[in-house]
Amino acid sequence: MTVERLVVVGGDAAGMSAASQARRLKGPDEMSIVAFERGDFTSYSACGIPYWVSGDVEGGPDALVARTPEEHRSRSIDLRMRTEVTELDVDGRRVRALDRESGETYWTEYDKLVIATGARPVRPPIPGIDAPGVHGVQTLGDGRALLDSLDQVRGRRAVVVGAGYIGVEMAEAMLKRGFGVTVLNRGEQPMATLDPDMGRLVHEAMDGLGITTVNGAAVTRIGTGPDGRVTEVRTDRDTYPADVVVLGIGVEPETALAREAGLPVGPHGGLLTDQSMRVAGRDDIWAGGDCVEVMDLVARRTRHIALGTHANKHGQIIGSNVGGGYGTFPGVVGTAVSKVCDLEIARTGLREKDARAAGLRFVTATIESTGRAGYYPGAESMTVKMLAEYRTGRLLGVQIVGRDGAAKRVDVAAVALTAGMTVEAMTALDLGYAPPFSPVWDPVLVAARKAVSAVRAG
Amino acid sequence: MTVERLVVVGGDAAGMSAASQARRLKGPDEMSIVAFERGDFTSYSACGIPYWVSGDVEGGPDALVARTPEEHRSRSIDLRMRTEVTELDVDGRRVRALDRESGETYWTEYDKLVIATGARPVRPPIPGIDAPGVHGVQTLGDGRALLDSLDQVRGRRAVVVGAGYIGVEMAEAMLKRGFGVTVLNRGEQPMATLDPDMGRLVHEAMDGLGITTVNGAAVTRIGTGPDGRVTEVRTDRDTYPADVVVLGIGVEPETALAREAGLPVGPHGGLLTDQSMRVAGRDDIWAGGDCVEVMDLVARRTRHIALGTHANKHGQIIGSNVGGGYGTFPGVVGTAVSKVCDLEIARTGLREKDARAAGLRFVTATIESTGRAGYYPGAESMTVKMLAEYRTGRLLGVQIVGRDGAAKRVDVAAVALTAGMTVEAMTALDLGYAPPFSPVWDPVLVAARKAVSAVRAG
Repeated sequence: MTVERLVVVGGDAAGMSAASQARRLKGPDEMSIVAFERGDFTSYSACGIPYWVSGDVEGGPDALVARTPEEHRSRSIDLRMRTEVTELDVDGRRVRALDRESGETYWTEYDKLVIATGARPVRPPIPGIDAPGVHGVQTLGDGRALLDSLDQVRGRRAVVVGAGYIGVEMAEAMLKRGFGVTVLNRGEQPMATLDPDMGRLVHEAMDGLGITTVNGAAVTRIGTGPDGRVTEVRTDRDTYPADVVVLGIGVEPETALAREAGLPVGPHGGLLTDQSMRVAGRDDIWAGGDCVEVMDLVARRTRHIALGTHANKHGQIIGSNVGGGYGTFPGVVGTAVSKVCDLEIARTGLREKDARAAGLRFVTATIESTGRAGYYPGAESMTVKMLAEYRTGRLLGVQIVGRDGAAKRVDVAAVALTAGMTVEAMTALDLGYAPPFSPVWDPVLVAARKAVSAVRAG
Repeated sequence: MTVERLVVVGGDAAGMSAASQARRLKGPDEMSIVAFERGDFTSYSACGIPYWVSGDVEGGPDALVARTPEEHRSRSIDLRMRTEVTELDVDGRRVRALDRESGETYWTEYDKLVIATGARPVRPPIPGIDAPGVHGVQTLGDGRALLDSLDQVRGRRAVVVGAGYIGVEMAEAMLKRGFGVTVLNRGEQPMATLDPDMGRLVHEAMDGLGITTVNGAAVTRIGTGPDGRVTEVRTDRDTYPADVVVLGIGVEPETALAREAGLPVGPHGGLLTDQSMRVAGRDDIWAGGDCVEVMDLVARRTRHIALGTHANKHGQIIGSNVGGGYGTFPGVVGTAVSKVCDLEIARTGLREKDARAAGLRFVTATIESTGRAGYYPGAESMTVKMLAEYRTGRLLGVQIVGRDGAAKRVDVAAVALTAGMTVEAMTALDLGYAPPFSPVWDPVLVAARKAVSAVRAG
């Protein structure tokens, strides 16, 4: 009996989920599995780094590792750490790897290949961006370096560049570490994944938490002192003293190898796959996680979304398919949740500008309500904005900013989007009600009712 | 121009929502609105009573009143308090009312009638059930009487009869008031709205909170002392000393008037309506709230569910329809959430026995997970049980018992049930993920994945 050879490039969520699931379906006598990881960790939660830095999560980087290299190896996965794949020979069905410890390179042949190379942080060409005291937070190594840096700084002034998820989460982390925090935001409002009117609520809440947010701030230069360490961040208008700088600018798909091999990448730089997560036009190559583009089921175009939950799903599906099972990833609706201290932020579906870009005409409705019955202790306010298609009333998107149970309410809208519901149908949804958990009209229902009126008014 | 005459029987959620919505659509020059309420309060949250009794909600009964009689009257609703409708003459289109203060009775004619007579507590014919110190908790008057009683009792032993929502919520309330609490439960496990295996988790958690639950306990007699006050509760097996007794036995539709008038009632004693909430076979009578049966969209039969959120929806829809607008109530999927101290309890759709009664063959999957990433502080366990139809894999029901964000997760399943999703489709749902809000696989997704395997295994 021939042993099928599976090669996995990348040892984080997507790659190792794929390897694990394939191993569940096929034993070592049926399939050999070699996985290459260029870094020091496998299967870790990058999303947890802000909470490790803040001190909320104890136990160091190990706490964020879901499965160690040893655990993977004990499941008969030939995992090669600190080994970087430097070339994909898709016609010859082999990959070239560089063992970073020995310096040795070698080819490994495959029958099936999984590409899970992840994403890399955007590093704009700003003078000083590589200075000591300037930190990204994409990898566990980045987190460790930042924490080491915090032990050394003299002052307590932190500048966070970027006001997306990573930016606001790192603002909270630095605040909790006792730093004065300034967030430099290139856009109109923080959280550009929300419409600006909802982003403004985040801005105001961050103000209330003592975090200074500067909008429309384009960083031009990072200044350093005599020892080479960061001392300030300059924008086109101002200078911000800084003892430490955190970059939360975002990521882009790591697809250099795949491009060189001639594999298809989309408008956002991610690999394009079919619904089984097989690389478009290829029978023997799958890709998943932060290096692929996913179908936005509402906008009906591909997007790049670096998010652990998608990577895990991709890995599971790829593993099933390469292991002789079956699974598909139909796409996403663009759900994301985050928080800054006790402020919860959530979105799903399309923003106003997404809807316009998709050629959709829409109405909006924004309401304020509470997460519990108004009389119940701890009831706090939340704002829900809903977009519905003009005429048809089909739900297009929901954004929520508030406290106390605000964020995960977006899941109701995520399921409704997936099901293609109208806002009118949503008003009848049988959502859980009891005073500690919801007002008698759940905020999502209140928003849906107002959206129905907006649709009728056209 | 003729002024249309609307008469509303019952001044709580359904009735006054209907009146208010009708008034929004039609001014006093187009429609007169007379509403009769036999009690002392309008538009109040009976669901809030346990939290008023516990001391969580301050401000007395007023805090639970969403809109007072004066507020309704200021909106040109002719609201007659302490006035009980004693007869419906549906052929003559008039109702007879008794003013309980003056003792006067009179007829009022209508063009359109709304019946919102609510529910009445089940009072089994147990000797001693009317003794001082034995309390129901259906009305604000009941809540006040119980609180007065608590000021008078000498001992601190409370017996709660019934272990459904009201029973467990009142157990928490009495515990918070400093009482030792025994819950006498006729069934196999507390929370009969869950399957027994999930009810057992509630039982164990109540034990952990110091609440004694006795299952299979049929109350045979309530004993009293020389002053006539309650002293003990006897079951077929034991005797439980009691300084105060709370009845949480449930309610049944209050439809005596409607039956006398020959209006159609269903198998559970509730009025039957069409989707516009119009009483079946009648053009000029609508009914909603706790006095009607609702369509269970999963079981495809009617049920009686006394719940404020349904009553408010019914009122809104009835008000739209009698006011010349349009609205429908398609039905429910049976969602309910509750808590005992920090233990959250939720259900939606069918239990095993409901599925069997509906003629459906099914598989089940039960998983344990956490409400946040495992490494995130405060992550606590929850158990999710999922039922899916045999072969088709259609979701049939979900039950959740746990802490920290467990209950409202059931809303995802409520929307999926409404949309008729399969558990396989659910595994791809794009639910919000970030470490403070969810593990990378939301517990609902973990349950869906296991349910998919169960469906495949048949």
